[in-house]
Amino acid sequence: MEEKIKNTNYRISSAVIKRLPRYFRYLRELLEAGTMRISSGELSKMMNVTASQIRQDLNCFGGFGQQGYGYNVKYLYTKISEILGVDKEYRAVIVGAGHLGMALVGSPMFAKRGVTLAALFDNSPDLVGKDYGALHIYDAAELENYIKNNNIDIAVLTLPRAYAKETAQRLANLGIKGIWNFTNVELQFEDLGTVVQNVHIGDSLMQLTYRIGSAEEK
Amino acid sequence: MEEKIKNTNYRISSAVIKRLPRYFRYLRELLEAGTMRISSGELSKMMNVTASQIRQDLNCFGGFGQQGYGYNVKYLYTKISEILGVDKEYRAVIVGAGHLGMALVGSPMFAKRGVTLAALFDNSPDLVGKDYGALHIYDAAELENYIKNNNIDIAVLTLPRAYAKETAQRLANLGIKGIWNFTNVELQFEDLGTVVQNVHIGDSLMQLTYRIGSAEEK
Repeated sequence: MEEKIKNTNYRISSAVIKRLPRYFRYLRELLEAGTMRISSGELSKMMNVTASQIRQDLNCFGGFGQQGYGYNVKYLYTKISEILGVDKEYRAVIVGAGHLGMALVGSPMFAKRGVTLAALFDNSPDLVGKDYGALHIYDAAELENYIKNNNIDIAVLTLPRAYAKETAQRLANLGIKGIWNFTNVELQFEDLGTVVQNVHIGDSLMQLTYRIGSAEEK
Repeated sequence: MEEKIKNTNYRISSAVIKRLPRYFRYLRELLEAGTMRISSGELSKMMNVTASQIRQDLNCFGGFGQQGYGYNVKYLYTKISEILGVDKEYRAVIVGAGHLGMALVGSPMFAKRGVTLAALFDNSPDLVGKDYGALHIYDAAELENYIKNNNIDIAVLTLPRAYAKETAQRLANLGIKGIWNFTNVELQFEDLGTVVQNVHIGDSLMQLTYRIGSAEEK
């Protein structure tokens, strides 16, 4: 019996978009474990989210669930991957080859999300010219040249915050499609004219201290 | 003229809690720039959030704004710091002294949020016994001993995912108050009996690829 597939070409709210990566991770784990079908109740228990929230989220882009039958895990995973752009192939460079840049290079995260790392950049003479695994560390002065000739979509900013704005502007001028910004400087689409995703790891630390405080009050 | 301070001892929704760290960052920048008062309209422009959302969020825990007068930046910052637990002093250890652990050690993030780093742990003979800045790298086998004797509240997990669950359980058994987990293994409060904040950096990458895709469709 085929599920009815609704058209998904409409806007999904940003709250749902923020939750989708979590579904992506859980569905991937289910797939890897060979699970083909799952009910909203089981998914709810796994993810610690109410079943009604799950049904509501997944209905946002077509549902795919059937009463008493559950969700087709593979289909849902594929669909969410498409929505998130994981099925597309993007090429990225990392600008800043310090510890954070190196930690990212070593992570399987990029490959799992359809992103290929092409090169690293830094301005330190101690690092420029070296290879890190399969990746070469280029001089940051070579950014323009390299990006023009290598079809790069994404730049990951792991450099000191003092360089953030100027480097982001250079990348935007080069027509880069997206900037993944770890510098803690808030970069804005409006200023750069290119998509920016700002990472503020410290926000997560404050959520932790908040929750420790709440737990202590109980 | 004094603002009326409402009682803030009630539950704040988790959606608001997730937004508070962002207010904290912006208010801190305003304070550092010497700004004493700001209207919801100005804050709205800065933060790229609607003024009504801002009023609604800040009213959640007492408001502090006055029509035509704006918010008292210092008071709001202090209040949000209290709610987030930034005013408390926590002591933390980092378990895993690879690139990610080192990147965190080098970040001013902890000090800015009232968290003091006390030590690093690793199981690699190449690292154990070394000092990194003011921090010593201890053998991971010393965790129990060290934590019992040094009043540690928070453990930051930056070790390989294969060690995540076992190490988190050891830390929970030691009565640690909170685990900040970078391993990409989903740790649960229900399993450990201690507060866990899971960081999934890859989720942010998927939000970026989603937004690149959306921008391309326009």
